Amino acid sequence: MQLVTDKIKGIEQDAVSDNRHGYVVGVDVGGTNLRMALADMTGTPLIKWSTSTVDLRGPDAVIGLIVDGVKNLLKQAGVEAEALRSIAVGVPGVTNTEDGVVIATSYLMGWRNVPLKALLETELQVPTAVDNDVNLAAIGENWAGAAQGERDFVFLAIGTGIGAGIVLNGCPYRGSGWAAGEIGYMLLPGTADGPGKSHEPGALESMIGGEGIRGQWRTTWSVDKTLLPKELTATEIFVHAQRGEALAQTILRGSATMLAHAIYNISLVLNCALFVLGGSVGAHPALRDAVQNVVDQWHIRGRIRLVRSALGTEAQLLGAIRTALDTANAYAASATVVIRG
Amino acid sequence: MQLVTDKIKGIEQDAVSDNRHGYVVGVDVGGTNLRMALADMTGTPLIKWSTSTVDLRGPDAVIGLIVDGVKNLLKQAGVEAEALRSIAVGVPGVTNTEDGVVIATSYLMGWRNVPLKALLETELQVPTAVDNDVNLAAIGENWAGAAQGERDFVFLAIGTGIGAGIVLNGCPYRGSGWAAGEIGYMLLPGTADGPGKSHEPGALESMIGGEGIRGQWRTTWSVDKTLLPKELTATEIFVHAQRGEALAQTILRGSATMLAHAIYNISLVLNCALFVLGGSVGAHPALRDAVQNVVDQWHIRGRIRLVRSALGTEAQLLGAIRTALDTANAYAASATVVIRG
Repeated sequence: MQLVTDKIKGIEQDAVSDNRHGYVVGVDVGGTNLRMALADMTGTPLIKWSTSTVDLRGPDAVIGLIVDGVKNLLKQAGVEAEALRSIAVGVPGVTNTEDGVVIATSYLMGWRNVPLKALLETELQVPTAVDNDVNLAAIGENWAGAAQGERDFVFLAIGTGIGAGIVLNGCPYRGSGWAAGEIGYMLLPGTADGPGKSHEPGALESMIGGEGIRGQWRTTWSVDKTLLPKELTATEIFVHAQRGEALAQTILRGSATMLAHAIYNISLVLNCALFVLGGSVGAHPALRDAVQNVVDQWHIRGRIRLVRSALGTEAQLLGAIRTALDTANAYAASATVVIRG
Repeated sequence: MQLVTDKIKGIEQDAVSDNRHGYVVGVDVGGTNLRMALADMTGTPLIKWSTSTVDLRGPDAVIGLIVDGVKNLLKQAGVEAEALRSIAVGVPGVTNTEDGVVIATSYLMGWRNVPLKALLETELQVPTAVDNDVNLAAIGENWAGAAQGERDFVFLAIGTGIGAGIVLNGCPYRGSGWAAGEIGYMLLPGTADGPGKSHEPGALESMIGGEGIRGQWRTTWSVDKTLLPKELTATEIFVHAQRGEALAQTILRGSATMLAHAIYNISLVLNCALFVLGGSVGAHPALRDAVQNVVDQWHIRGRIRLVRSALGTEAQLLGAIRTALDTANAYAASATVVIRG
């Protein structure tokens, strides 16, 4: 944060320590979209902005998009750049939140050791936080969603990939190598019986991630078994299962059983009861109900509580806003101390 | 600790706050043996005592044994009862270390909500700590064994049952319900595909706990396949595998593969690299080597480090001594504050 600290010397004390009239920006970098929101210091989102990231995934290009987006948001809201207190960015990868370095993103993006915090602070001259997007979603659900006030829970993000955001004692647990919760690689009854290569989807996500469920449908599909088309998305399959279509129900039940096994294993390690199901595939109500059916058949009374994400696709963005607020407040506190000292 | 605090009023200040010349006792309550050691305030064990717990597993009987054992140890060492600063007791079950209550022990012992700390403090009139035995083994290895100075690691105890003692950021992680690390129930490729009943061995331990490995040997065994007898213990099978016996090698390899899967899953959740293999079955060198062989074939460079327990069957006892020292020091500090206040 050196560059920001250098700049701050030229600003009056009131502007630094008075955060009430400032703004923050939360950013969610995804494999297909980059989304961001400007919020006031209560965390209320005022305006949003999004753009495609398809074919545009290198760090420089993404940083360019973020900088453009922030300027756009400020302009649209009629807010001076000086009123921006902080930004927080969620990325789909292993992230060192202390140094603000994205260590690695998934096989889709392929970033390695990108000092995203430093690069963005140079460009935007505001305190910046970066974090894994699933951890931000967990923070969002903890702040304003399905896990409000919970001290221990696991947020499961199931989309193309599968990851877990773990909150223990009220804090995100990130692991000594910043890679806790990488459960898309979990080995279970019915998965591969060993980890695959690092640039390939994990054993669990290749079965019940969005593409995995599509693939299961495609390989199980035949004209004798169903009137439905061979190409369906995971959520389309879930909708047909809800309507009673037999083959779709088989696929849903199989996916739910495997997810229940993963949840059970995580609960054994962490002794955590609450699981929030999120992500484009994971947040579907049919999946929660089907997993609940599996768990209800087990003799593990009270051990697992399942709820759907309350924030849906907004979870990461709200977690980013919450983190930006924390970053702004921590920075204001430290700046106040420096000036008073 | 109320009773002890009441008693302490009658003791001189020096005796309370001067821990240098005191002693502590560590106790390990097992399904077949109860073992204990008297140690000085550097943690050096001076004398040990053990007795059978076969057919003697109710809380009252076990408390009786502990009280007798402590008196025996003090007498043998020629130490006055007043010089005993604290005891710490490890039990094979889910334990609330804050309240000192054993919530549940395994299907072998069947304790439910036993206030062991309060009962022992009433009997012995010294500050008492209780903890799960596998957590104590992890504390022992962290203090004086294979994980000295490590901030994050998992101790795997494989005997009749299987459990994990998890250390995160230098502290045992026990979970919100005191049951973290109950990995004997983990579901993996090749195990049952759901949790069994609560009084039955878990899916993983029924395969690769001591009895599970025996059972696998027994069902695979035939006179055509091996010259070895049908009844062998897990460690006997491991020894024959080391000597090159083909069927024993098959059983060892299968057990090692399943254990490698469990370790990998735990590493995914916690992002923890170091695993210490302990317990009567787990500490066998043949098992560590065979698990290492499995892991070496995976593309997960540096993700998992395997070491054998350095303390062997002493791990729990040394962890109990370490915990007793911490308990004595914490108590002396609080007593000093009270008296000075």
